[in-house]
Amino acid sequence: MVSKKDGAFVRGLAVKKNRLESGAFLVEGEKCLLEVLESDFEVKKVFCTTTFFEDYKNDHLASVEVEVVRQEELEKLGTLTSNNAGIAVVKMKTATRFVPPQQGWSLLLDRVNDPGNLGTILRIADWYGIADVVCSENTVDVYNPKVIAASKGSFTRVRVYYETLGDVIQRYPEIQAVGAELDGMSVHEYTFPARGFLVMGSESHGIDPLVRSQLTQKISIPSFGGAESLNVAIATAVLLDNLNRGRVERSR
Amino acid sequence: MVSKKDGAFVRGLAVKKNRLESGAFLVEGEKCLLEVLESDFEVKKVFCTTTFFEDYKNDHLASVEVEVVRQEELEKLGTLTSNNAGIAVVKMKTATRFVPPQQGWSLLLDRVNDPGNLGTILRIADWYGIADVVCSENTVDVYNPKVIAASKGSFTRVRVYYETLGDVIQRYPEIQAVGAELDGMSVHEYTFPARGFLVMGSESHGIDPLVRSQLTQKISIPSFGGAESLNVAIATAVLLDNLNRGRVERSR
Repeated sequence: MVSKKDGAFVRGLAVKKNRLESGAFLVEGEKCLLEVLESDFEVKKVFCTTTFFEDYKNDHLASVEVEVVRQEELEKLGTLTSNNAGIAVVKMKTATRFVPPQQGWSLLLDRVNDPGNLGTILRIADWYGIADVVCSENTVDVYNPKVIAASKGSFTRVRVYYETLGDVIQRYPEIQAVGAELDGMSVHEYTFPARGFLVMGSESHGIDPLVRSQLTQKISIPSFGGAESLNVAIATAVLLDNLNRGRVERSR
Repeated sequence: MVSKKDGAFVRGLAVKKNRLESGAFLVEGEKCLLEVLESDFEVKKVFCTTTFFEDYKNDHLASVEVEVVRQEELEKLGTLTSNNAGIAVVKMKTATRFVPPQQGWSLLLDRVNDPGNLGTILRIADWYGIADVVCSENTVDVYNPKVIAASKGSFTRVRVYYETLGDVIQRYPEIQAVGAELDGMSVHEYTFPARGFLVMGSESHGIDPLVRSQLTQKISIPSFGGAESLNVAIATAVLLDNLNRGRVERSR
Protein backbone atom coordinates (compact mmCIF):
# COMPACT_ATOMS: atom_id res chain seq x y z
CA MET A 1 0.00 0.00 0.00
CA VAL A 2 1.59 3.24 -1.18
CA SER A 3 1.89 5.87 1.57
CA LYS A 4 -0.15 9.06 1.22
CA LYS A 5 3.03 11.11 0.91
CA ASP A 6 4.53 8.91 -1.82
CA GLY A 7 1.21 8.79 -3.64
CA ALA A 8 0.87 12.57 -3.74
CA PHE A 9 4.50 12.97 -4.83
CA VAL A 10 4.27 10.45 -7.69
CA ARG A 11 0.93 11.72 -8.95
CA GLY A 12 2.33 15.25 -8.84
CA LEU A 13 5.05 14.35 -11.33
CA ALA A 14 2.49 14.42 -14.14
CA VAL A 15 2.76 18.23 -13.84
CA LYS A 16 5.80 20.12 -15.16
CA LYS A 17 6.07 22.54 -12.22
CA ASN A 18 6.41 19.63 -9.78
CA ARG A 19 8.94 17.86 -12.00
CA LEU A 20 11.08 21.00 -12.11
CA GLU A 21 10.87 21.47 -8.33
CA SER A 22 11.81 17.89 -7.52
CA GLY A 23 14.12 17.19 -10.47
CA ALA A 24 12.33 13.89 -11.06
CA PHE A 25 10.01 12.39 -13.66
CA LEU A 26 7.91 9.26 -14.27
CA VAL A 27 8.61 6.29 -16.49
CA GLU A 28 5.67 3.93 -16.91
CA GLY A 29 4.92 0.57 -18.48
CA GLU A 30 7.09 -2.52 -19.02
CA LYS A 31 9.08 -1.56 -22.14
CA CYS A 32 10.04 1.95 -20.96
CA LEU A 33 10.73 0.71 -17.42
CA LEU A 34 13.16 -1.98 -18.59
CA GLU A 35 14.91 0.50 -20.86
CA VAL A 36 15.37 3.13 -18.15
CA LEU A 37 16.64 0.50 -15.69
CA GLU A 38 19.28 -0.52 -18.26
CA SER A 39 20.25 3.10 -19.03
CA ASP A 40 22.53 5.58 -17.28
CA PHE A 41 19.54 7.41 -15.75
CA GLU A 42 19.40 7.30 -11.95
CA VAL A 43 16.22 5.46 -10.89
CA LYS A 44 15.18 6.60 -7.41
CA LYS A 45 12.35 4.14 -6.80
CA VAL A 46 10.23 1.59 -8.65
CA PHE A 47 6.60 0.79 -7.83
CA CYS A 48 5.67 -2.47 -9.57
CA THR A 49 3.35 -5.46 -9.59
CA THR A 50 4.34 -8.81 -8.05
CA THR A 51 4.63 -10.31 -11.53
CA PHE A 52 7.05 -7.65 -12.74
CA PHE A 53 9.01 -7.94 -9.51
CA GLU A 54 9.35 -11.73 -9.79
CA ASP A 55 10.39 -11.47 -13.44
CA TYR A 56 13.13 -8.90 -12.93
CA LYS A 57 14.16 -8.94 -9.24
CA ASN A 58 17.48 -10.61 -10.03
CA ASP A 59 18.59 -8.37 -12.88
CA HIS A 60 16.87 -5.06 -13.73
CA LEU A 61 15.58 -4.54 -10.17
CA ALA A 62 18.61 -5.94 -8.30
CA SER A 63 20.07 -2.62 -7.16
CA VAL A 64 17.10 -0.26 -6.91
CA GLU A 65 14.51 0.55 -4.23
CA VAL A 66 11.30 -1.32 -5.04
CA GLU A 67 7.79 -1.27 -3.61
CA VAL A 68 5.38 -3.97 -4.77
CA VAL A 69 1.85 -2.63 -5.32
CA ARG A 70 -1.40 -3.76 -6.90
CA GLN A 71 -2.14 -2.91 -10.56
CA GLU A 72 -5.07 -0.67 -9.51
CA GLU A 73 -2.69 1.34 -7.32
CA LEU A 74 -0.25 1.74 -10.23
CA GLU A 75 -3.01 3.02 -12.47
CA LYS A 76 -4.02 5.55 -9.81
CA LEU A 77 -0.41 6.67 -9.29
CA GLY A 78 0.47 7.12 -12.94
CA THR A 79 -0.97 8.44 -16.16
CA LEU A 80 -1.51 5.18 -18.10
CA THR A 81 -5.06 3.81 -18.26
CA SER A 82 -3.65 0.31 -18.08
CA ASN A 83 -0.33 -0.59 -16.46
CA ASN A 84 0.36 -4.15 -15.32
CA ALA A 85 4.11 -3.61 -14.91
CA GLY A 86 5.28 -0.59 -12.95
CA ILE A 87 6.27 3.03 -12.54
CA ALA A 88 9.76 4.39 -11.92
CA VAL A 89 10.60 7.71 -10.33
CA VAL A 90 13.71 8.81 -12.21
CA LYS A 91 16.12 11.68 -11.69
CA MET A 92 16.28 14.21 -14.53
CA LYS A 93 19.65 14.73 -16.14
CA THR A 94 21.39 18.04 -15.53
CA ALA A 95 20.73 20.34 -18.46
CA THR A 96 23.88 20.99 -20.47
CA ARG A 97 24.56 23.22 -23.42
CA PHE A 98 24.30 21.56 -26.84
CA VAL A 99 27.59 20.93 -28.63
CA PRO A 100 27.16 19.38 -32.07
CA PRO A 101 29.04 16.18 -32.88
CA GLN A 102 32.15 16.47 -35.09
CA GLN A 103 30.29 14.69 -37.86
CA GLY A 104 26.75 13.75 -38.73
CA TRP A 105 23.45 15.48 -38.10
CA SER A 106 21.45 16.88 -35.24
CA LEU A 107 17.73 17.61 -35.15
CA LEU A 108 16.39 21.08 -34.25
CA LEU A 109 12.68 21.20 -33.33
CA ASP A 110 10.74 24.46 -33.36
CA ARG A 111 7.56 24.51 -31.26
CA VAL A 112 6.56 20.87 -31.43
CA ASN A 113 3.69 21.08 -28.98
CA ASP A 114 2.11 17.66 -29.15
CA PRO A 115 3.74 15.26 -26.65
CA GLY A 116 2.97 12.25 -28.85
CA ASN A 117 4.79 13.91 -31.73
CA LEU A 118 7.90 14.71 -29.67
CA GLY A 119 8.04 11.17 -28.26
CA THR A 120 7.63 9.66 -31.73
CA ILE A 121 10.36 11.96 -33.07
CA LEU A 122 12.76 10.75 -30.35
CA ARG A 123 12.03 7.16 -31.41
CA ILE A 124 12.68 8.07 -35.06
CA ALA A 125 15.88 9.96 -34.18
CA ASP A 126 17.03 6.89 -32.25
CA TRP A 127 16.25 4.61 -35.24
CA TYR A 128 18.33 6.79 -37.53
CA GLY A 129 21.19 7.19 -35.05
CA ILE A 130 20.66 10.91 -34.33
CA ALA A 131 22.27 11.53 -30.91
CA ASP A 132 21.06 15.08 -30.19
CA VAL A 133 17.68 16.79 -30.46
CA VAL A 134 17.60 20.52 -29.71
CA CYS A 135 14.14 21.89 -28.92
CA SER A 136 13.08 25.52 -28.92
CA GLU A 137 12.14 26.65 -25.41
CA ASN A 138 8.43 26.58 -26.30
CA THR A 139 8.54 22.93 -27.38
CA VAL A 140 6.71 20.49 -25.08
CA ASP A 141 8.70 19.19 -22.07
CA VAL A 142 10.57 15.95 -22.83
CA TYR A 143 9.81 14.71 -19.29
CA ASN A 144 6.04 14.92 -19.92
CA PRO A 145 4.77 11.33 -19.30
CA LYS A 146 3.17 11.22 -22.78
CA VAL A 147 6.50 12.09 -24.44
CA ILE A 148 8.29 9.41 -22.42
CA ALA A 149 5.62 6.80 -23.29
CA ALA A 150 5.58 7.64 -27.02
CA SER A 151 9.37 7.46 -27.21
CA LYS A 152 9.18 3.72 -26.32
CA GLY A 153 12.43 4.00 -24.38
CA SER A 154 14.33 6.04 -26.96
CA PHE A 155 14.52 8.96 -24.48
CA THR A 156 17.31 6.98 -22.79
CA ARG A 157 19.50 7.09 -25.91
CA VAL A 158 18.77 10.49 -27.48
CA ARG A 159 19.97 13.64 -25.67
CA VAL A 160 17.43 16.48 -25.59
CA TYR A 161 18.30 20.16 -25.11
CA TYR A 162 16.15 23.29 -24.80
CA GLU A 163 17.77 26.34 -26.39
CA THR A 164 16.96 29.27 -28.66
CA LEU A 165 17.36 27.68 -32.09
CA GLY A 166 18.54 30.92 -33.68
CA ASP A 167 21.41 31.10 -31.17
CA VAL A 168 22.46 27.52 -31.91
CA ILE A 169 22.56 28.14 -35.66
CA GLN A 170 24.47 31.39 -35.12
CA ARG A 171 27.03 29.70 -32.84
CA TYR A 172 28.01 27.26 -35.60
CA PRO A 173 28.15 29.17 -38.90
CA GLU A 174 30.23 26.35 -40.42
CA ILE A 175 27.31 23.90 -40.01
CA GLN A 176 24.54 23.97 -42.59
CA ALA A 177 21.01 24.52 -41.28
CA VAL A 178 18.54 22.71 -43.52
CA GLY A 179 14.86 23.34 -42.85
CA ALA A 180 11.72 21.51 -43.91
CA GLU A 181 9.41 23.95 -45.72
CA LEU A 182 6.57 23.27 -48.15
CA ASP A 183 8.22 25.45 -50.82
CA GLY A 184 11.70 23.97 -50.39
CA MET A 185 13.72 21.98 -52.92
CA SER A 186 12.62 18.35 -53.31
CA VAL A 187 14.54 16.14 -50.90
CA HIS A 188 14.74 13.58 -53.72
CA GLU A 189 16.95 16.02 -55.66
CA TYR A 190 18.95 17.34 -52.72
CA THR A 191 22.36 15.98 -51.68
CA PHE A 192 22.87 16.21 -47.92
CA PRO A 193 26.33 17.31 -46.74
CA ALA A 194 28.15 15.10 -44.21
CA ARG A 195 27.26 17.39 -41.30
CA GLY A 196 24.26 19.56 -40.55
CA PHE A 197 21.24 20.66 -38.56
CA LEU A 198 17.84 19.44 -39.75
CA VAL A 199 15.25 22.01 -38.62
CA MET A 200 11.59 20.95 -38.28
CA GLY A 201 8.81 23.44 -37.55
CA SER A 202 5.47 23.01 -35.83
CA GLU A 203 2.68 21.53 -37.89
CA SER A 204 0.45 24.56 -37.55
CA HIS A 205 3.01 27.36 -37.71
CA GLY A 206 5.99 25.98 -39.64
CA ILE A 207 9.46 27.25 -38.73
CA ASP A 208 9.66 30.56 -36.82
CA PRO A 209 10.41 33.40 -39.31
CA LEU A 210 13.61 34.41 -37.52
CA VAL A 211 14.97 30.85 -37.61
CA ARG A 212 13.75 30.47 -41.20
CA SER A 213 15.85 33.49 -42.21
CA GLN A 214 18.95 31.69 -40.89
CA LEU A 215 18.46 28.51 -42.94
CA THR A 216 21.13 27.72 -45.53
CA GLN A 217 18.74 25.44 -47.44
CA LYS A 218 15.00 24.73 -47.54
CA ILE A 219 13.89 21.24 -48.51
CA SER A 220 10.49 19.61 -48.97
CA ILE A 221 8.95 16.19 -49.35
CA PRO A 222 7.51 15.70 -52.84
CA SER A 223 3.76 15.20 -52.89
CA PHE A 224 1.90 13.14 -55.47
CA GLY A 225 -1.68 13.45 -54.20
CA GLY A 226 -4.25 15.58 -52.41
CA ALA A 227 -3.19 15.88 -48.75
CA GLU A 228 -2.08 19.39 -47.78
CA SER A 229 0.61 18.40 -45.31
CA LEU A 230 2.23 15.59 -43.38
CA ASN A 231 2.43 15.32 -39.60
CA VAL A 232 5.76 16.65 -38.25
CA ALA A 233 6.88 13.22 -36.96
CA ILE A 234 6.09 11.61 -40.32
CA ALA A 235 8.01 14.35 -42.16
CA THR A 236 10.99 13.97 -39.82
CA ALA A 237 11.15 10.23 -40.54
CA VAL A 238 10.99 10.70 -44.31
CA LEU A 239 13.72 13.36 -44.27
CA LEU A 240 16.01 11.33 -41.98
CA ASP A 241 15.54 8.34 -44.25
CA ASN A 242 16.61 10.40 -47.24
CA LEU A 243 19.55 11.79 -45.26
CA ASN A 244 20.75 8.28 -44.47
CA ARG A 245 20.58 6.83 -47.98
CA GLY A 246 23.95 5.36 -48.83
CA ARG A 247 25.11 5.06 -45.21
CA VAL A 248 26.03 1.61 -43.94
CA GLU A 249 23.27 0.14 -41.82
CA ARG A 250 23.81 -0.81 -38.19
CA SER A 251 24.28 -4.59 -38.00
CA ARG A 252 21.49 -6.40 -36.15
CA MET B 1 -31.56 22.93 -29.45
CA VAL B 2 -30.99 19.42 -30.82
CA SER B 3 -34.00 17.11 -30.42
CA LYS B 4 -33.65 14.10 -28.09
CA LYS B 5 -34.07 11.74 -31.03
CA ASP B 6 -31.39 13.45 -33.14
CA GLY B 7 -29.06 13.65 -30.16
CA ALA B 8 -29.28 9.95 -29.41
CA PHE B 9 -28.83 9.07 -33.08
CA VAL B 10 -25.73 11.25 -33.55
CA ARG B 11 -24.09 10.17 -30.31
CA GLY B 12 -24.79 6.56 -31.27
CA LEU B 13 -22.67 6.88 -34.42
CA ALA B 14 -19.52 6.74 -32.27
CA VAL B 15 -20.25 2.99 -32.07
CA LYS B 16 -19.60 0.67 -35.04
CA LYS B 17 -22.79 -1.40 -34.59
CA ASN B 18 -24.94 1.74 -34.92
CA ARG B 19 -22.97 2.96 -37.94
CA LEU B 20 -23.53 -0.36 -39.69
CA GLU B 21 -27.26 -0.35 -38.88
CA SER B 22 -27.83 3.20 -40.10
CA GLY B 23 -25.22 3.29 -42.87
CA ALA B 24 -24.02 6.67 -41.58
CA PHE B 25 -20.94 8.06 -39.83
CA LEU B 26 -19.72 11.29 -38.21
CA VAL B 27 -17.35 13.90 -39.59
CA GLU B 28 -16.22 16.48 -37.00
CA GLY B 29 -14.21 19.69 -36.90
CA GLU B 30 -13.71 22.45 -39.46
CA LYS B 31 -11.05 20.94 -41.74
CA CYS B 32 -12.72 17.52 -42.12
CA LEU B 33 -16.17 19.09 -42.43
CA LEU B 34 -15.14 21.37 -45.30
CA GLU B 35 -13.43 18.49 -47.06
CA VAL B 36 -16.43 16.16 -46.82
CA LEU B 37 -18.78 18.92 -48.02
CA GLU B 38 -16.56 19.35 -51.10
CA SER B 39 -16.33 15.61 -51.75
CA ASP B 40 -18.67 13.13 -53.45
CA PHE B 41 -19.88 11.81 -50.08
CA GLU B 42 -23.59 12.37 -49.40
CA VAL B 43 -23.94 14.63 -46.35
CA LYS B 44 -27.31 14.01 -44.68
CA LYS B 45 -27.21 16.78 -42.10
CA VAL B 46 -24.82 19.31 -40.57
CA PHE B 47 -24.97 20.55 -36.97
CA CYS B 48 -22.79 23.65 -36.69
CA THR B 49 -22.11 26.84 -34.77
CA THR B 50 -23.43 30.23 -35.91
CA THR B 51 -19.90 31.28 -36.87
CA PHE B 52 -19.36 28.26 -39.10
CA PHE B 53 -22.82 28.74 -40.61
CA GLU B 54 -22.22 32.41 -41.41
CA ASP B 55 -18.80 31.62 -42.93
CA TYR B 56 -20.00 28.87 -45.26
CA LYS B 57 -23.78 29.25 -45.76
CA ASN B 58 -23.37 30.47 -49.32
CA ASP B 59 -20.96 27.83 -50.56
CA HIS B 60 -20.21 24.63 -48.61
CA LEU B 61 -23.54 24.65 -46.76
CA ALA B 62 -25.71 25.95 -49.62
CA SER B 63 -27.38 22.65 -50.50
CA VAL B 64 -27.40 20.65 -47.31
CA GLU B 65 -29.72 20.41 -44.28
CA VAL B 66 -28.24 22.50 -41.44
CA GLU B 67 -29.12 22.96 -37.78
CA VAL B 68 -27.33 25.73 -35.89
CA VAL B 69 -26.37 24.70 -32.35
CA ARG B 70 -24.17 25.96 -29.51
CA GLN B 71 -20.57 24.75 -29.20
CA GLU B 72 -21.35 22.93 -25.92
CA GLU B 73 -24.08 20.98 -27.72
CA LEU B 74 -21.63 20.00 -30.48
CA GLU B 75 -19.15 18.72 -27.95
CA LYS B 76 -21.85 16.64 -26.28
CA LEU B 77 -23.04 15.27 -29.64
CA GLY B 78 -19.65 14.28 -30.97
CA THR B 79 -16.38 12.76 -29.87
CA LEU B 80 -14.07 15.80 -29.98
CA THR B 81 -13.23 17.48 -26.67
CA SER B 82 -13.26 20.82 -28.43
CA ASN B 83 -15.28 21.58 -31.58
CA ASN B 84 -16.16 25.17 -32.50
CA ALA B 85 -17.18 24.30 -36.06
CA GLY B 86 -19.60 21.44 -36.59
CA ILE B 87 -20.52 17.80 -37.08
CA ALA B 88 -21.81 16.20 -40.26
CA VAL B 89 -23.84 13.02 -40.48
CA VAL B 90 -22.60 11.41 -43.68
CA LYS B 91 -23.78 8.40 -45.66
CA MET B 92 -21.28 5.54 -45.92
CA LYS B 93 -20.25 4.51 -49.40
CA THR B 94 -21.46 1.14 -50.64
CA ALA B 95 -18.71 -1.42 -50.14
CA THR B 96 -17.29 -2.63 -53.45
CA ARG B 97 -14.71 -5.23 -54.29
CA PHE B 98 -11.15 -3.98 -54.71
CA VAL B 99 -9.84 -3.90 -58.27
CA PRO B 100 -6.22 -2.72 -58.52
CA PRO B 101 -5.41 0.16 -60.86
CA GLN B 102 -3.75 -0.68 -64.19
CA GLN B 103 -0.56 0.94 -62.97
CA GLY B 104 0.94 2.11 -59.73
CA TRP B 105 0.67 0.80 -56.21
CA SER B 106 -1.99 -0.05 -53.66
CA LEU B 107 -1.56 -0.39 -49.92
CA LEU B 108 -2.58 -3.57 -48.08
CA LEU B 109 -2.91 -3.23 -44.27
CA ASP B 110 -2.92 -6.25 -42.00
CA ARG B 111 -4.50 -5.75 -38.54
CA VAL B 112 -3.82 -2.06 -38.03
CA ASN B 113 -5.81 -1.71 -34.82
CA ASP B 114 -5.04 1.82 -33.70
CA PRO B 115 -7.52 4.31 -35.22
CA GLY B 116 -4.92 7.11 -35.11
CA ASN B 117 -2.53 4.96 -37.13
CA LEU B 118 -5.14 4.09 -39.78
CA GLY B 119 -6.17 7.76 -40.14
CA THR B 120 -2.55 8.87 -40.40
CA ILE B 121 -1.87 6.18 -43.01
CA LEU B 122 -4.81 7.45 -45.12
CA ARG B 123 -3.30 10.95 -44.97
CA ILE B 124 0.11 9.56 -46.03
CA ALA B 125 -1.44 7.48 -48.83
CA ASP B 126 -3.21 10.63 -50.04
CA TRP B 127 0.07 12.62 -49.97
CA TYR B 128 1.78 9.97 -52.10
CA GLY B 129 -1.15 9.57 -54.50
CA ILE B 130 -2.15 6.04 -53.44
CA ALA B 131 -5.81 5.66 -54.46
CA ASP B 132 -6.68 2.37 -52.77
CA VAL B 133 -6.08 0.98 -49.29
CA VAL B 134 -7.18 -2.61 -48.68
CA CYS B 135 -7.55 -3.54 -45.00
CA SER B 136 -7.75 -7.03 -43.52
CA GLU B 137 -11.18 -7.64 -41.98
CA ASN B 138 -9.72 -7.29 -38.46
CA THR B 139 -8.31 -3.82 -39.14
CA VAL B 140 -10.06 -0.96 -37.30
CA ASP B 141 -13.20 0.49 -38.98
CA VAL B 142 -12.39 3.40 -41.29
CA TYR B 143 -15.63 5.13 -40.19
CA ASN B 144 -14.45 5.22 -36.55
CA PRO B 145 -14.50 8.96 -35.62
CA LYS B 146 -10.82 8.82 -34.57
CA VAL B 147 -9.79 7.43 -37.96
CA ILE B 148 -11.77 10.15 -39.75
CA ALA B 149 -10.23 12.88 -37.55
CA ALA B 150 -6.64 11.62 -37.94
CA SER B 151 -7.04 11.40 -41.72
CA LYS B 152 -7.49 15.21 -41.85
CA GLY B 153 -9.94 14.87 -44.72
CA SER B 154 -7.90 12.35 -46.72
CA PHE B 155 -10.66 9.74 -46.22
CA THR B 156 -12.55 11.62 -48.95
CA ARG B 157 -9.85 10.91 -51.54
CA VAL B 158 -8.55 7.44 -50.65
CA ARG B 159 -10.81 4.42 -51.20
CA VAL B 160 -10.80 1.88 -48.38
CA TYR B 161 -11.78 -1.79 -48.75
CA TYR B 162 -12.08 -4.63 -46.21
CA GLU B 163 -11.05 -7.98 -47.67
CA THR B 164 -9.01 -11.06 -46.87
CA LEU B 165 -5.54 -9.93 -47.95
CA GLY B 166 -4.48 -13.44 -48.95
CA ASP B 167 -7.40 -13.61 -51.40
CA VAL B 168 -6.50 -10.26 -52.94
CA ILE B 169 -2.88 -11.32 -53.49
CA GLN B 170 -4.02 -14.66 -54.93
CA ARG B 171 -6.49 -12.98 -57.31
CA TYR B 172 -3.69 -10.98 -58.96
CA PRO B 173 -0.67 -13.28 -59.35
CA GLU B 174 0.79 -10.87 -61.94
CA ILE B 175 1.09 -8.12 -59.29
CA GLN B 176 4.06 -8.23 -56.94
CA ALA B 177 3.27 -8.26 -53.22
CA VAL B 178 6.03 -6.48 -51.32
CA GLY B 179 5.88 -6.66 -47.53
CA ALA B 180 7.60 -4.66 -44.80
CA GLU B 181 9.48 -7.06 -42.51
CA LEU B 182 12.38 -6.38 -40.15
CA ASP B 183 14.52 -9.03 -41.89
CA GLY B 184 13.72 -7.86 -45.43
CA MET B 185 16.08 -6.40 -48.00
CA SER B 186 17.00 -2.73 -47.39
CA VAL B 187 14.56 -0.45 -49.19
CA HIS B 188 17.55 1.72 -50.09
CA GLU B 189 18.87 -1.14 -52.25
CA TYR B 190 15.54 -2.28 -53.65
CA THR B 191 14.13 -1.17 -57.01
CA PHE B 192 10.34 -0.99 -56.94
CA PRO B 193 8.53 -2.29 -60.03
CA ALA B 194 5.97 -0.02 -61.71
CA ARG B 195 3.02 -1.85 -60.17
CA GLY B 196 2.53 -3.59 -56.87
CA PHE B 197 0.95 -4.15 -53.50
CA LEU B 198 2.76 -2.74 -50.47
CA VAL B 199 1.79 -4.89 -47.46
CA MET B 200 2.14 -3.44 -43.94
CA GLY B 201 1.58 -5.54 -40.82
CA SER B 202 0.47 -4.59 -37.34
CA GLU B 203 3.12 -3.11 -35.05
CA SER B 204 2.78 -5.84 -32.45
CA HIS B 205 2.26 -8.88 -34.68
CA GLY B 206 3.82 -8.04 -38.04
CA ILE B 207 2.27 -9.52 -41.18
CA ASP B 208 0.04 -12.57 -40.73
CA PRO B 209 2.07 -15.76 -41.48
CA LEU B 210 -0.28 -16.86 -44.27
CA VAL B 211 -0.04 -13.48 -46.02
CA ARG B 212 3.71 -13.41 -45.39
CA SER B 213 4.08 -16.72 -47.25
CA GLN B 214 2.48 -15.10 -50.30
CA LEU B 215 4.89 -12.14 -50.50
CA THR B 216 7.10 -11.93 -53.57
CA GLN B 217 9.58 -9.66 -51.75
CA LYS B 218 10.33 -8.61 -48.19
CA ILE B 219 11.80 -5.16 -47.63
CA SER B 220 12.94 -3.27 -44.54
CA ILE B 221 13.91 0.24 -43.48
CA PRO B 222 17.62 0.47 -42.62
CA SER B 223 18.31 1.34 -38.98
CA PHE B 224 21.33 3.25 -37.76
CA GLY B 225 20.58 3.46 -34.04
CA GLY B 226 19.03 1.82 -31.00
CA ALA B 227 15.23 1.84 -31.47
CA GLU B 228 13.76 -1.63 -32.02
CA SER B 229 11.03 -0.63 -34.44
CA LEU B 230 9.14 2.21 -36.08
CA ASN B 231 5.42 2.89 -35.76
CA VAL B 232 3.44 1.39 -38.70
CA ALA B 233 2.35 4.83 -40.01
CA ILE B 234 5.94 6.11 -39.90
CA ALA B 235 7.18 2.99 -41.72
CA THR B 236 4.45 3.34 -44.37
CA ALA B 237 5.52 6.94 -45.06
CA VAL B 238 9.20 6.05 -45.39
CA LEU B 239 8.46 3.16 -47.77
CA LEU B 240 6.05 5.19 -49.92
CA ASP B 241 8.65 7.95 -50.13
CA ASN B 242 11.23 5.44 -51.38
CA LEU B 243 8.69 4.01 -53.81
CA ASN B 244 8.07 7.46 -55.29
CA ARG B 245 11.68 8.48 -55.78
CA GLY B 246 12.14 9.48 -59.40
CA ARG B 247 8.43 10.09 -60.04
CA VAL B 248 7.40 13.54 -61.18
CA GLU B 249 5.91 15.55 -58.32
CA ARG B 250 2.34 16.84 -58.44
CA SER B 251 2.42 20.53 -59.31
CA ARG B 252 1.25 22.83 -56.52
